[in-house]
Amino acid sequence: MPEGTEQRRSYRKGVERRQQILDHAIGLFAERGVDGASLRSVGDSIGVSHAALRHYFSSRDELLVEVYREHEQRTQDGEVPPDRGAVEGMARSADRNRVVPGLVQLYSTLTSDALQDRHPLTREFIRERFARVRDELAAKIAEGQRAGRIAADVDAADAASLVIAASDGLQVQWLLEPGAVDVRRSLELLERLLPSGDGEGGG
Amino acid sequence: MPEGTEQRRSYRKGVERRQQILDHAIGLFAERGVDGASLRSVGDSIGVSHAALRHYFSSRDELLVEVYREHEQRTQDGEVPPDRGAVEGMARSADRNRVVPGLVQLYSTLTSDALQDRHPLTREFIRERFARVRDELAAKIAEGQRAGRIAADVDAADAASLVIAASDGLQVQWLLEPGAVDVRRSLELLERLLPSGDGEGGG
Repeated sequence: MPEGTEQRRSYRKGVERRQQILDHAIGLFAERGVDGASLRSVGDSIGVSHAALRHYFSSRDELLVEVYREHEQRTQDGEVPPDRGAVEGMARSADRNRVVPGLVQLYSTLTSDALQDRHPLTREFIRERFARVRDELAAKIAEGQRAGRIAADVDAADAASLVIAASDGLQVQWLLEPGAVDVRRSLELLERLLPSGDGEGGG
Repeated sequence: MPEGTEQRRSYRKGVERRQQILDHAIGLFAERGVDGASLRSVGDSIGVSHAALRHYFSSRDELLVEVYREHEQRTQDGEVPPDRGAVEGMARSADRNRVVPGLVQLYSTLTSDALQDRHPLTREFIRERFARVRDELAAKIAEGQRAGRIAADVDAADAASLVIAASDGLQVQWLLEPGAVDVRRSLELLERLLPSGDGEGGG
């Protein structure tokens, strides 16, 4: 079946090409941030024609979302590691972000776009992401409550929202004034409220 | 000195006109958000010519910053009220914001713009705002430490950054999923860490 082989080969090449573009875009955003990025300017910067870019990403929003999704998939093996508490997991994620301020800026752009009606795809991505991370953290916190580390009268869902919010907000303040804000130290104050257990959290 | 009188009258009229424009823009943003707002579209919406708008605000960024500054000045009499703790002050501010989601969205846009090089005026405004609010909250927290309500080994500056971050981040999550996030309840968890004293904080 040479035709089927040909199709598979073409499909595989397409997947590889899309992946290459994401690689380049992650590098570009990590280095320079997302400042005024249009599909065209991203294409120019990574040496891909506008038409080729449009073949894989139908809009600027789709490209930004896919770049961030790819970045997170690569790094989030440890996002909320099973052996860490909710706060320590977020603090480690923030530690990793310190070296790629451009991607923290991309996340902030996505979050801000998500609040505006004309970015429905971004809104869906960010909304689902918040819901997923809230669920993961709430499960961690409930686990800590069952283990007797975290006060039973803390609402796990409220606390999960709080930890995410603190982490997001601290990274924004840090980007603007790196010398005035220490993301990890501020986040670790939440360990007093939501201890990780086993002495793994805390500084 | 009729000439001086004339100048004063003209100046006063200018101040009034600028104020009227800010009034209208606050109303517009509160109602519809800042979605894709350009100087021209704002002018169209509030019935002011582009030229007149440009006379008072030299750019879209300046208009957005001045609208937010004006909004805050009008509402912040109570931002960090002297008789409340740091957390309760922020919770009250968030309560007020609930009724003007468009202005929370404007704040998020300003914060995201501030991270990008091409918005220097916005960056300066947001940076100064963070620095000022951090100082105010850190002073409150230090006061709580002197009064023996807050643990002496909490770093007041770290805690101030945390409270602001939590408040900012929670409002974003709430805007995206009002049913899933309760800003005040989540923020009040921080009362356990940073008690307001006199039973004024907490729910």
